[in-house]
Amino acid sequence: MNASDESLITSPKPKSRPGAPQESLRRGPSASLEGRLMRGLLRRLGEPPIEFILWNGEHIAPAGVEPACRVRILDRATLLSVITDPQVRFPDAYSEGRIEIEGDLVRLLEEVYLAGSRSASSPVGRVLERLRRPHANTLSGSRENIHHHYDIGNAFYSLWLGATMAYTCAYYPTPETTLDEAQVAKMHHVCRKLRLRPGESVVEAGCGWGTLALHMARHYGVKVRAFNISREQVAYARERAEREGLASQVEYVLDDYRNISGRYDAFVSVGMLEHVGVANYRGLGEVISRSLGDNGRGLIHSIGRNFPAPLQPWIEKRIFPGACPPSLGEMMGIFEPWDLSILDVENLRLHYAQTLRHWLALFEGEVERVRHMFDEKFVRMWRMYLAGSVAGFTTGTLQLFQVVFASRRNNDVPRTREYLYQT
Amino acid sequence: MNASDESLITSPKPKSRPGAPQESLRRGPSASLEGRLMRGLLRRLGEPPIEFILWNGEHIAPAGVEPACRVRILDRATLLSVITDPQVRFPDAYSEGRIEIEGDLVRLLEEVYLAGSRSASSPVGRVLERLRRPHANTLSGSRENIHHHYDIGNAFYSLWLGATMAYTCAYYPTPETTLDEAQVAKMHHVCRKLRLRPGESVVEAGCGWGTLALHMARHYGVKVRAFNISREQVAYARERAEREGLASQVEYVLDDYRNISGRYDAFVSVGMLEHVGVANYRGLGEVISRSLGDNGRGLIHSIGRNFPAPLQPWIEKRIFPGACPPSLGEMMGIFEPWDLSILDVENLRLHYAQTLRHWLALFEGEVERVRHMFDEKFVRMWRMYLAGSVAGFTTGTLQLFQVVFASRRNNDVPRTREYLYQT
Repeated sequence: MNASDESLITSPKPKSRPGAPQESLRRGPSASLEGRLMRGLLRRLGEPPIEFILWNGEHIAPAGVEPACRVRILDRATLLSVITDPQVRFPDAYSEGRIEIEGDLVRLLEEVYLAGSRSASSPVGRVLERLRRPHANTLSGSRENIHHHYDIGNAFYSLWLGATMAYTCAYYPTPETTLDEAQVAKMHHVCRKLRLRPGESVVEAGCGWGTLALHMARHYGVKVRAFNISREQVAYARERAEREGLASQVEYVLDDYRNISGRYDAFVSVGMLEHVGVANYRGLGEVISRSLGDNGRGLIHSIGRNFPAPLQPWIEKRIFPGACPPSLGEMMGIFEPWDLSILDVENLRLHYAQTLRHWLALFEGEVERVRHMFDEKFVRMWRMYLAGSVAGFTTGTLQLFQVVFASRRNNDVPRTREYLYQT
Repeated sequence: MNASDESLITSPKPKSRPGAPQESLRRGPSASLEGRLMRGLLRRLGEPPIEFILWNGEHIAPAGVEPACRVRILDRATLLSVITDPQVRFPDAYSEGRIEIEGDLVRLLEEVYLAGSRSASSPVGRVLERLRRPHANTLSGSRENIHHHYDIGNAFYSLWLGATMAYTCAYYPTPETTLDEAQVAKMHHVCRKLRLRPGESVVEAGCGWGTLALHMARHYGVKVRAFNISREQVAYARERAEREGLASQVEYVLDDYRNISGRYDAFVSVGMLEHVGVANYRGLGEVISRSLGDNGRGLIHSIGRNFPAPLQPWIEKRIFPGACPPSLGEMMGIFEPWDLSILDVENLRLHYAQTLRHWLALFEGEVERVRHMFDEKFVRMWRMYLAGSVAGFTTGTLQLFQVVFASRRNNDVPRTREYLYQT
């Protein structure tokens, strides 16, 4: 695509000429100030095949491409706001109903991610990027950050996470695998990678609603100490362990991973690293290193990126304060200071896209209940978050890394990874 | 072990008291100056269970441990030299016959590696570390560095590399796999990871004696352009391609990887990265990035480390000038600037230990011929290099990473890695 001015023509959309929209776009007269601003934004976005329709009837779209979807901006103030800081203000305006989307929201966001390049932000955007300070992950900061997201109600999450209440990337061995099957498959995949043996001890950092800890205890006969700073999640997990008769094997600890003590055969953390913050990676490695003996091994499962970059700022602001998915290079800051060996890395990016599609479908199926629990703005905010996450993983903007590691001296490692695939 | 002075006692070895060597060591009288210097070195090494025997009959060993092997230092000058810079002077003295080893050389070096810690070097050692400048990998520097090692004679390498002439870590699916089988298995493993399809094009950076390129062409029906700056290797490879009737499918290019041009479906490099130098990783990534389209994928197979550190300085000086095995974090410097996605990392450290054991055994079987081709010093130097490499991999001082990567936009990736293990 050509990024020059000529490639974007704005004009009032002709209502009576279906089949030739590009033609008429190309012949459009000079645009209004708002239209030209919108055109500038589209250019900064890398000209994704999206048609913007303004409140005054103007249509703005890249020339020569059939738009994949349409965005209606309902008033001038919204346009000006979005132009200033599209990454935050666009999803905010959508949440508040000042923007409407015609077509598939996931597709729209995929087109934006695919069109964008690493250097696409405007000078204003770059200034904003510098000014943005993600919420700090001190001990108390982490408590607040985690409370913001995970303590909004177990009833809400149970509407759309499926039976396992696992809120992390699932593992789909086949296209037909269901969400619940895929979550169970993910837990087995993790346990096999850890080569858990009956009687061993495991420490889990960030245990969510406790599903993996119970799974490890039930299916692999291990003892688990599972740490989490979300009160709601720990309460739920403890109740579940009691109900399932596993309370003697699984201890849920309402505390920060930094306070893990003791020695264990294995360390596991699924979906916590995103909340740790790169500045704390060396400290996390120290926790791992002191928790594992010479034959210890561990697994960290985390959203990641191809290169170091902050989390999408709207997600950090509205959904996951303090969160930052690391690049694999940044993740090495956990292991390298402590002479831990990386044994295996697997990228499950497209599995997370599928997981999120399943969550989004369940969410939409329960949308009336969600609206009743919260409000319309909440519904639209979470729809944007889930759809944006699908798009992040399908376009490679986000990755999902499972990293297996061990003490340098641990020679008790499997010869090949074939055993992972034998049932 | 206790690192205080009392834990090391030196004394003339009592010849007539088998069964109580530790006891007599502990009761030894005050040592000579040389003995005390030797004792200091042993302490700096972390007190590995090694007994040193000096020319004057003094024995120095950690107290309370049965030595795993014995080292005879044959004269005072050698001791003083080794104490100054043990990492370089010890293997030099061994090569020159001024040190003799009783017991298994691999075991000796394993004990040294296991006892050593990251901060074990002496003040002198740390100064030396700073002063050491590995041989630069400019275009001409790389040519010289590669010439030093790989052009010493195809006849020599063919004595102990096995039938495949593959001079990189093999892959042993079972303990019974032979060297030649394991080299073929490695090549299949690499090709499967790359998911090569007939008719595709592959560029190989650093092709050794050309074995992998021929394997890819023969078994996967791809066209290969294979780059190498070793004249001897390229001459050998071209002759082989002719002989095997694959010259129309495989082109060997006597040129630097930096001069790779054109577009390919896959990029592969097995055992070259060690010679690239971290300073050139971004440039290597640029080569990869421009070589691969949106559906491209690649594999880099390289010796690595758990944390950034220079290559063992004697190996860099005498064996592999300019070489530096990277940490995985350093390797990410290839991919992250170019938005390449890491799909899979596998650590084959113990496979390389096994490969090297096989090479060492073949080498020892042909040692008379090697001595005839070169001299005794060469034989001892190469024995030290091969044994030290075994020890490096068995102790986790060295790692072997296979890293699979792809364009961010490549969604044509296998759902699971199970297919790698289906034959």
